[in-house]
Amino acid sequence: MPEKNTEQDTARGSSVGVVQPQDIQLADEDNPLILDNGRSFAPINVRYETYGRLNKERSNAVLILHAFSGDAHAAGYHSPEDQKPGWWDPMIGPGRAFDTTKYFIISSNVLGGCQGTTGPASVSPETGKPYGLSFPVITIADMVRLQERLIDALGIDRLLAVAGGSMGGMQALEWAVGYPERVRSAMVLSSTARLNAQGIAFNAVGRNAITTDCRWAGGDYYGEETPSTGLAIARMIGHITYLSDESMRMKFGRRLQQRATYGYDFSDQFEVESYLQHQGDKFVDRFDANSYLYLSKAMDYFDMSESYGGLTNAFSRTGAKFLVISYSSDWLYPTYQSKEMVYAMMKSGLDVTFIELASPYGHDSFLLDAGRQTELISSFLEKAYAESTE
Amino acid sequence: MPEKNTEQDTARGSSVGVVQPQDIQLADEDNPLILDNGRSFAPINVRYETYGRLNKERSNAVLILHAFSGDAHAAGYHSPEDQKPGWWDPMIGPGRAFDTTKYFIISSNVLGGCQGTTGPASVSPETGKPYGLSFPVITIADMVRLQERLIDALGIDRLLAVAGGSMGGMQALEWAVGYPERVRSAMVLSSTARLNAQGIAFNAVGRNAITTDCRWAGGDYYGEETPSTGLAIARMIGHITYLSDESMRMKFGRRLQQRATYGYDFSDQFEVESYLQHQGDKFVDRFDANSYLYLSKAMDYFDMSESYGGLTNAFSRTGAKFLVISYSSDWLYPTYQSKEMVYAMMKSGLDVTFIELASPYGHDSFLLDAGRQTELISSFLEKAYAESTE
Repeated sequence: MPEKNTEQDTARGSSVGVVQPQDIQLADEDNPLILDNGRSFAPINVRYETYGRLNKERSNAVLILHAFSGDAHAAGYHSPEDQKPGWWDPMIGPGRAFDTTKYFIISSNVLGGCQGTTGPASVSPETGKPYGLSFPVITIADMVRLQERLIDALGIDRLLAVAGGSMGGMQALEWAVGYPERVRSAMVLSSTARLNAQGIAFNAVGRNAITTDCRWAGGDYYGEETPSTGLAIARMIGHITYLSDESMRMKFGRRLQQRATYGYDFSDQFEVESYLQHQGDKFVDRFDANSYLYLSKAMDYFDMSESYGGLTNAFSRTGAKFLVISYSSDWLYPTYQSKEMVYAMMKSGLDVTFIELASPYGHDSFLLDAGRQTELISSFLEKAYAESTE
Repeated sequence: MPEKNTEQDTARGSSVGVVQPQDIQLADEDNPLILDNGRSFAPINVRYETYGRLNKERSNAVLILHAFSGDAHAAGYHSPEDQKPGWWDPMIGPGRAFDTTKYFIISSNVLGGCQGTTGPASVSPETGKPYGLSFPVITIADMVRLQERLIDALGIDRLLAVAGGSMGGMQALEWAVGYPERVRSAMVLSSTARLNAQGIAFNAVGRNAITTDCRWAGGDYYGEETPSTGLAIARMIGHITYLSDESMRMKFGRRLQQRATYGYDFSDQFEVESYLQHQGDKFVDRFDANSYLYLSKAMDYFDMSESYGGLTNAFSRTGAKFLVISYSSDWLYPTYQSKEMVYAMMKSGLDVTFIELASPYGHDSFLLDAGRQTELISSFLEKAYAESTE
């Protein structure tokens, strides 16, 4: 997650305040989840949070879908002392883009994650030990399959909207296309309908860094030292791809961390080096290395064209309205990938609004550019809500 | 180094054939090399190759400067059975861009390298053991300092041209600005006058992968197992940056290596993953991990603006003619960086030709796009040579 930036301060409205995470079991032996790979999997626990209230028509529910390293905690604080709000806090709250005085917002940790929902670090009831690599390989569609059970459990027939950036955008696409009768509208930010070779390449190198860390131990490291150096390197690689040449130049330039002039030794660290190491070190405290493997692999597999016989066929399955946003400096999911999906949506006769926002912040812009996103998303949501009541 | 591509087949002329690498000692206790960090360093051996013949006026010498993972072997073969030519073979030979019937071509391995020139894997005469991290931190200017001694030893007062891509382009810039009386012209391909934060970031992650490999052992791994997994990861990261989104899409797309349909398990490998692993594995056989640290750090330090009090001041020191080439899909050294130096060269009143070539091959284009480079470089060289005889 990026650090606070000034854009966030310009977000209107206020925070949802203190929130309480919820846990729910959504699959058991009698009712396992059938995965894309054919395996029947149970039990599955899901961690989720909600903000705002479901109206009596149950027509104001919006599902927020987190990105690769996100979690269920999208907004607010976990205690009055908590200093760090949820990952999309400037976007969710009274008067914010996802206005909790109007909408019922739901956010859950994905299948395979490590923040409360069942994943490779969870204990297998068969062995009494963490799954590790015996956890099934999952897909974006499997994540959405589990989310559908959450929506069922919350008594919601049809979501007003699904919304997410990056891997969250993939889930939003899968929701709209895979469950057309259950989604009125979808917001897809900084995302793609199929991961490109370059994205697969970066994920593969990150996985390689983890699996070649001798402490990885074939994924069976729980209770022992964790593959923290490999995971930190994977995170550092990822972090470079979330920023942009321009944002790194603005933020760090060629400044050294501790010296004014070059010392010509390896203790000379440029600011950008220290920043990346700090990001890597912070990450290993909160993220499970095996989850990195599973979630990145799920992204690699994501290809709506492959799953649905072409992108146009995919979008022909749904009548959802779409809002697609890309960012000019996002080179991980460049604008041409958004245009590719918008073209297929339009060919399928869908109602789609697309905009490329100029931003220097790279892929992370969807987390940082709260001001402009608020204008776009609040207007899109209001219209979708008005149409749902017609 | 990239694989053979069709552009290479269109290169005109023929190979130089079998060539013999040369070794020469260029610094000893009585005449050490004074480095940027103040240290007096000796002994230093240099591996080099030459192609073509020095004319009697000694006016036709061209120094080729290799990139990060290159070596002295720029052209030809080391034996009649040798299958793999030098790294810029399509560009060097009778009738080629660097026409060996006209010019005397010199190519040497850089200081700090691991292909014949003294570097961290060389044996220290003080300890009788490889230097490892007791090797001094070096700079691009130090590499050029040593190359000047090679030119002295070959009896050349003034080079007709210096030429290089990427890190080789940095050396070409340093030659022209640091030794203006010794360089008539310089060709700078796919390069920059100062490494940007993003470039430093990628180098830093590569170094981190090496130094966190437990076999690295503080750089003292010689004679033991080498940090091959860390070095392979560093190479994989580097390799992604040498390609482009477009070239990876064309070359690999989303194809799996061994299956037609997704198996949803970790044995599923996309072609791009296998390719990167192969590149990483090949690299560790020919490259020393400590050289990776030293050469990448030298690139990080490279900033002509810092060294010479601004880019315009830097270029005001020289009267060399410049040819600057960038590639449209090179996102590691994007065109704006070439434009930055061209702007400063023009402000300094220099004669400079600049072109951005459209190419999908990313940073590696300078190694692959032999056809068009041949047109540009042969014409530029001919003109420089004609002017030198006026």
